[in-house]
Amino acid sequence: MEIHFKSWAESASRLVAVAAGRDGADLVICGGKLVNVQTREVLDWQVAVAAGRFAYVGPDASHCIGPDTRVIEAEGRYLIPGLCDGHMHIESGMLTPAEFAAAVIPHGTTTMFTDPHEIANVLGLDGVRMMHDEALMQPINIYTQMPSCAPSAPGLETTGFEISAEDVAEAMAWPGIIGLGEMMNFPGVINGDPQMLAEMAATMNAGKTVGGHYASPDKGIPFSAYVAGGAADDHEGTAEADAIARVRNGMRSMMRLGSAWYDVESQITAVTEKGLDPRNFILCTDDCMAGTLVNDGHMNRVVRHAIDCGCDPLVALQMATINTATHFGLERELGSITPGRRADMILTSDLKTLPIEHVIARGQTVAMDGQITVDCPHFDWPEDARKTVRMGKVLTEDDFAIAAPAGANSVKAKVIGVVENQAPTQALTAELPVVDGIVAGKDDTYQIALVERHRATGDVTNGFVSGFGYQGRMAMASTVAHDSHHMIVVGTDRAMMAAAANRLGEVGGGVTVWKDGAELALVELPIAGLMSDSPAAEVAAKADQMVRAMEACGCTLNNAYMQHSLLALVVIPSLRISDLGLVDVDKFELTELFEENA
Amino acid sequence: MEIHFKSWAESASRLVAVAAGRDGADLVICGGKLVNVQTREVLDWQVAVAAGRFAYVGPDASHCIGPDTRVIEAEGRYLIPGLCDGHMHIESGMLTPAEFAAAVIPHGTTTMFTDPHEIANVLGLDGVRMMHDEALMQPINIYTQMPSCAPSAPGLETTGFEISAEDVAEAMAWPGIIGLGEMMNFPGVINGDPQMLAEMAATMNAGKTVGGHYASPDKGIPFSAYVAGGAADDHEGTAEADAIARVRNGMRSMMRLGSAWYDVESQITAVTEKGLDPRNFILCTDDCMAGTLVNDGHMNRVVRHAIDCGCDPLVALQMATINTATHFGLERELGSITPGRRADMILTSDLKTLPIEHVIARGQTVAMDGQITVDCPHFDWPEDARKTVRMGKVLTEDDFAIAAPAGANSVKAKVIGVVENQAPTQALTAELPVVDGIVAGKDDTYQIALVERHRATGDVTNGFVSGFGYQGRMAMASTVAHDSHHMIVVGTDRAMMAAAANRLGEVGGGVTVWKDGAELALVELPIAGLMSDSPAAEVAAKADQMVRAMEACGCTLNNAYMQHSLLALVVIPSLRISDLGLVDVDKFELTELFEENA
Repeated sequence: MEIHFKSWAESASRLVAVAAGRDGADLVICGGKLVNVQTREVLDWQVAVAAGRFAYVGPDASHCIGPDTRVIEAEGRYLIPGLCDGHMHIESGMLTPAEFAAAVIPHGTTTMFTDPHEIANVLGLDGVRMMHDEALMQPINIYTQMPSCAPSAPGLETTGFEISAEDVAEAMAWPGIIGLGEMMNFPGVINGDPQMLAEMAATMNAGKTVGGHYASPDKGIPFSAYVAGGAADDHEGTAEADAIARVRNGMRSMMRLGSAWYDVESQITAVTEKGLDPRNFILCTDDCMAGTLVNDGHMNRVVRHAIDCGCDPLVALQMATINTATHFGLERELGSITPGRRADMILTSDLKTLPIEHVIARGQTVAMDGQITVDCPHFDWPEDARKTVRMGKVLTEDDFAIAAPAGANSVKAKVIGVVENQAPTQALTAELPVVDGIVAGKDDTYQIALVERHRATGDVTNGFVSGFGYQGRMAMASTVAHDSHHMIVVGTDRAMMAAAANRLGEVGGGVTVWKDGAELALVELPIAGLMSDSPAAEVAAKADQMVRAMEACGCTLNNAYMQHSLLALVVIPSLRISDLGLVDVDKFELTELFEENA
Repeated sequence: MEIHFKSWAESASRLVAVAAGRDGADLVICGGKLVNVQTREVLDWQVAVAAGRFAYVGPDASHCIGPDTRVIEAEGRYLIPGLCDGHMHIESGMLTPAEFAAAVIPHGTTTMFTDPHEIANVLGLDGVRMMHDEALMQPINIYTQMPSCAPSAPGLETTGFEISAEDVAEAMAWPGIIGLGEMMNFPGVINGDPQMLAEMAATMNAGKTVGGHYASPDKGIPFSAYVAGGAADDHEGTAEADAIARVRNGMRSMMRLGSAWYDVESQITAVTEKGLDPRNFILCTDDCMAGTLVNDGHMNRVVRHAIDCGCDPLVALQMATINTATHFGLERELGSITPGRRADMILTSDLKTLPIEHVIARGQTVAMDGQITVDCPHFDWPEDARKTVRMGKVLTEDDFAIAAPAGANSVKAKVIGVVENQAPTQALTAELPVVDGIVAGKDDTYQIALVERHRATGDVTNGFVSGFGYQGRMAMASTVAHDSHHMIVVGTDRAMMAAAANRLGEVGGGVTVWKDGAELALVELPIAGLMSDSPAAEVAAKADQMVRAMEACGCTLNNAYMQHSLLALVVIPSLRISDLGLVDVDKFELTELFEENA
């Protein structure tokens, strides 16, 4: 199923023959200005391609032109290497690898390093393998980082599957695995957790790259201990000092601009103002929603932004090409327009605004003027990857009823307080009324439920949430529920909550918004309850409709779908919900819903 | 026999514990100025070492100090990474790996990438393995590049052993093999020679680095064809344009300063004046004689020279540390003072003059103030590596008699013309007298003989050479005879030539100089006829005596031992001698000693 793309060694005889002028190239590009990211220069150079690789770069490629050679006249435009995304999660786009690739190719992305962490929680190693296999079928380079932390918080949640150190060791032998995905259990590493060290050891023993994730602002001893464990990069920095600490410690600083991450501007001053050697800085997206891909771009958006932040365009391009390739040990395979490398390149008429006019991957035109011109083949996802929402039973409003302590007329309940534009939640409390022995919401406090959906237990964990601004009779349910991806239902009405949950059970997962007994929006995500195999534009339109439906239900927050989907992320403070109960993340322990009578 | 040095993964638990302050370090250095080659900065940072690796680097390592921690006060000196030699041949020093290491450690060299090309010609793959094994026994890092071209010129010479593509593939699995040694058969690569491509493919398939050697000034189509074959670096550049061509083509430019190579000053302007990104430039020595090591230094000499040429000291240090490590895929193993890497470092009080005051390798003090403080273990070289001079018989003056064509009173003979300070020879002719049917030398023209010494055939190839200035009755013989390393004898007297040759047969190889029936100098090189296992100072003293003996015989040339040892190097123009006869290198064919009567 994987496209077999011949290695440099397999193609060397042909490449030499073309460079020597004994054989015609498949493609020659003349009349362009070549951006050489090895030397940081712009050269009036021509390029010849054979077997999907650069065979010749130099002042004159006319000796490489044979009777069957396609010749492109660049008309003075710049030739830049195809862009690399140093770390990202395909699932964040709610798209399969094929549809994600189709969405980003017109933006000039030709290489991605992707960590299928979400599907690992739902389908385990098998799910990772399916993502990996679809990735290898694409006409661009999608390398897989083996997920390291499923569950993210052992003991506080139950994932669909777990990832073991043995799984990591097994995956290291797969053809598309480039390393370990972000080691986010940084407290575990700092404390010498044997499983975390074993996963990193398996990766290092395979000669591959350990991705890092150190999400604390403390750059003192804990950070040093984390670095000593072996993580080779980190994309969780948010301030200049974070970036500087990482490169001074021999890590690569990955600076991200995702749909909701804005960490380039604050960190790139380490290069533009402090003058550090730029070789260890890499640009990435981490998480992009389909709408961002459709409306704003992908790595071209990141490079453009870095330039807008004052970075020299050639340095910014190095951060999205050769620096990334070097980090993953691929500098002789991609990331520069030099002989032997994969012929991934972009024609653009301006190095600052970076319009993506013509994209070539492995020597083949894959997009022209924003339109994809190539097929991105779909993996044949099996039934067990499409039927992952196992409800156990049809839910009713009773499943969402929260019984009050016997005889209580009102209760003091813990409430998850959503904060606009922030991942952390507040741990609030509210005095809530009791009606017929059942606790009711009040004002801006309504119910949240975590519906178990991996093992069909029929279990529902109930609690309270506030901050969205919902009014009237509504409910919203999502099977994108980081990181264990059960189902999160938020609603003001228990019957509507049941309807929304059952609806996702029917369609195999996604996001649905209900108001007054009717469904206002549905984003079907049939694959693992996380991804659609429809085109990005279609998914983006449905996601947009979902956001409008949330607004129709009274939601006043920006980007509130993200808030919704993170309510079960039990590694980020302060109060969360999981299939095991309410979680006090500050204490890293389960907690009771009702305050003790003190 | 190999020292087992634990990997980062094996030591991670300890490193984390030390960095976290739970366990005491083996060594802490405080009060120094750390040269960070990752960022190109000097920092007032401290360093903690455990298990031979850096566990912590940062402003304050006091939490890493335990009861058994050795603490070094740097007293304001600079802490720089141990220096790396990007490409070199140990045999050029006439020393075994152990003695070479002992000679360079006090100069701050802690990593070498060495191509045992010479021994490969004498002992084949077994010889390479012995060098490789002794390399791994040393307290510093000696990585082996598998020799690629033995013989250098198939059909024009007979080596002791040949290296095949299968040998290369086999060696790639050895623990100390880092890649392929310089692919010097560049015409073969350009013409698509299957064996050369197969050797490079075996290397690339193993994920290792193909060393290059493109010794032509032509940077046009032939150079491009060579690059397309897969060589990743080149150290044969001599001009700025050579260096620029290499890095623009995605190769690393290795700039060498050896005993007789002076290629840094002419190329480093690509960085210092043309402003190219310095990341792809690497410093190396290629070939150093024992005397250079004893009197002038090693990589410290090269870095110092680069700085004298106007290179920023931090950039020059990058070229001898992190750039080299990155090139060979070792950037997370060595080449910078950052966590996890091998604790190889130097204390120096000045970044420009670079005095090497204290050398630490893998956390252990290996030299102080120019004196080695550690043992460099010797490999137990077997008899067949020590008895490689197989003469077949005791030679007499008759073996060196050159019979004239029947009835001739004089002959017109081809003469190898030695040129001072140059590797190429001239193809001269001389009218020579005939005495009793035997051709005699005249004026500055005397005899040269290539004595077969690998297979005990007893064959002697005779010819004429001029240019040394020899007078009186003398002879000089050497078993260092690039590249096939038979024995080269030059002399004015046939009996003396036989005596010199027989002497080397007795002692198992080396260099000997005779005058008036007595031996004036002898450098014993018992291992493969190439190396001594005596200390460098001893070998350097004997080599110095050899040069003085050559002068006593009338030699007027600078560095004439090198001229002598290159007289059989049948890949460099114009006229050479081999075991198969006289070689016209310009035509790449064997040629007759006497000019045809025209």
